Amino acid sequence: MKNKTKKNIVRIGLIQTRSESGPVPNLKKIILQIKIAAAKGAQIISTQELFTTPYFCQTENTQNFDFAESIPGPTTDALCKVAKSEKVVIIASLFEKRGKGVYHNTAAVIDADGKYLGKYRKMHIPDDPAFYEKFYFVPGDLGFKTFQTKYAKIGVLICWDQWFPEAARLTALAGADILFYPTAIGWKPEEPQQTASYHAAWETIQKSHAIANGVYVASVNRVGKEGGLQFWGQSFIADPFGHVLYRASSAKEEIVLADCDLNLVEQTRREWPFLRDRRIDAYPPILSRLIEK
Amino acid sequence: MKNKTKKNIVRIGLIQTRSESGPVPNLKKIILQIKIAAAKGAQIISTQELFTTPYFCQTENTQNFDFAESIPGPTTDALCKVAKSEKVVIIASLFEKRGKGVYHNTAAVIDADGKYLGKYRKMHIPDDPAFYEKFYFVPGDLGFKTFQTKYAKIGVLICWDQWFPEAARLTALAGADILFYPTAIGWKPEEPQQTASYHAAWETIQKSHAIANGVYVASVNRVGKEGGLQFWGQSFIADPFGHVLYRASSAKEEIVLADCDLNLVEQTRREWPFLRDRRIDAYPPILSRLIEK
Repeated sequence: MKNKTKKNIVRIGLIQTRSESGPVPNLKKIILQIKIAAAKGAQIISTQELFTTPYFCQTENTQNFDFAESIPGPTTDALCKVAKSEKVVIIASLFEKRGKGVYHNTAAVIDADGKYLGKYRKMHIPDDPAFYEKFYFVPGDLGFKTFQTKYAKIGVLICWDQWFPEAARLTALAGADILFYPTAIGWKPEEPQQTASYHAAWETIQKSHAIANGVYVASVNRVGKEGGLQFWGQSFIADPFGHVLYRASSAKEEIVLADCDLNLVEQTRREWPFLRDRRIDAYPPILSRLIEK
Repeated sequence: MKNKTKKNIVRIGLIQTRSESGPVPNLKKIILQIKIAAAKGAQIISTQELFTTPYFCQTENTQNFDFAESIPGPTTDALCKVAKSEKVVIIASLFEKRGKGVYHNTAAVIDADGKYLGKYRKMHIPDDPAFYEKFYFVPGDLGFKTFQTKYAKIGVLICWDQWFPEAARLTALAGADILFYPTAIGWKPEEPQQTASYHAAWETIQKSHAIANGVYVASVNRVGKEGGLQFWGQSFIADPFGHVLYRASSAKEEIVLADCDLNLVEQTRREWPFLRDRRIDAYPPILSRLIEK
């Protein structure tokens, strides 16, 4: 079944880091890491979720809204310069201040010529002990989006979005060949047994998005202990068959690099023609909360 | 986070077999296997896909329509008797003759008192070299269904449905605590390298349905070589975290047994409240074939 098609390689770089104390050192660090990734040939580079700060959602504290900034704004301005000088696409996960009292968990996409392309606002907002995101973030209202960058048409989803097949499906149907998931997920060190389950489920469901949609999935998580959470790293890139091309360690700062053959998207969908056979005529009840008789 | 809830155990039995030459020996064999499974405590028992025959869809041959039968009909009548005597729920995957020239790939559900509860008609029909199902089966028109049986509320999906997150979602939203997937999937022995990928993807995507929906998934596949296909067995049962409770061998006939705690469905959804956060307001474009701008 293997088609001997020409390859169309794009190199992805994911920056898995430990957070510094705040925005100034984190921005400095990420710019350095982007330059290192670019020097290693990365063409599309993604930060982890909310990279400018420690994961502040572990508590509900109005002071933390001070971390929010406009998008585009000072951080994207700085990153646009780097994108242009390094000729790389940058996906930057940031805390967006949209207006007084209206904040989002947002990812900005910057093209390889330094142009700000647009943003995705996290659609699914969690709320769990130590992940009090509903306190901070208005659910996104821009829908599921794709961005035509110099090197690939990509989609960006953020962390909790990972658990929703609908989010991946909608982004893939809109034409994304690669789904990026900036993430901040970890465990409570006092619950080590649950961690293995959670991590396995986390990787499984993201691989399933690659398989169901015939796309690449690139997930970038932070490492390090912050307050009561140990972030589990293990950023990875999966191909459209769900093969993990590279999986980072659970504890170290790392730049994850993988070469993705974009032609494999069409090739995989020819072999696994799921998009041909979707029963869209029968799916309308999926817009229900529950289906009660 | 573990809640100390009471358990509500149901034992599933999946009958992974090699096909005999045709309906008479296969029915005889499945009845014997159901009795053995029942003796081992199985309460809900599923056959593999199209268990009465070899997997005839490897070729397009109008003679094979002779295998089709009405549902309910002679095979379900025989199985209703077994269900009643053994006090087990039976899911029987059959070739349905609905009328002259209208055939479906259908699963019948029989309750533990021997009552025929209804049927599910395979919604997603594949068509691939050696899997020429579009020649034989009209796509299902009964939608995604659940069945309240004596032991659990269950959903049945069939083989190719496995690859569609929408099918699992719709069946779970309708209240199924366990998704059953009668299956006939295998590889061409001349392509062993692809098999590992395909099998891994097949298990991954089904585990993802368990995780995304907080339900049990029970998948039952055939074994043995038939014509150009080697069926890969490896029937399995996964819990709502995506843990595989039991995975059968790739070559041997086996009865897969696992105890499923139905209370884990609610417990898992409390810990992973995905159904709380689905953005049903933003999902309507999922009813599109592709999303073009």
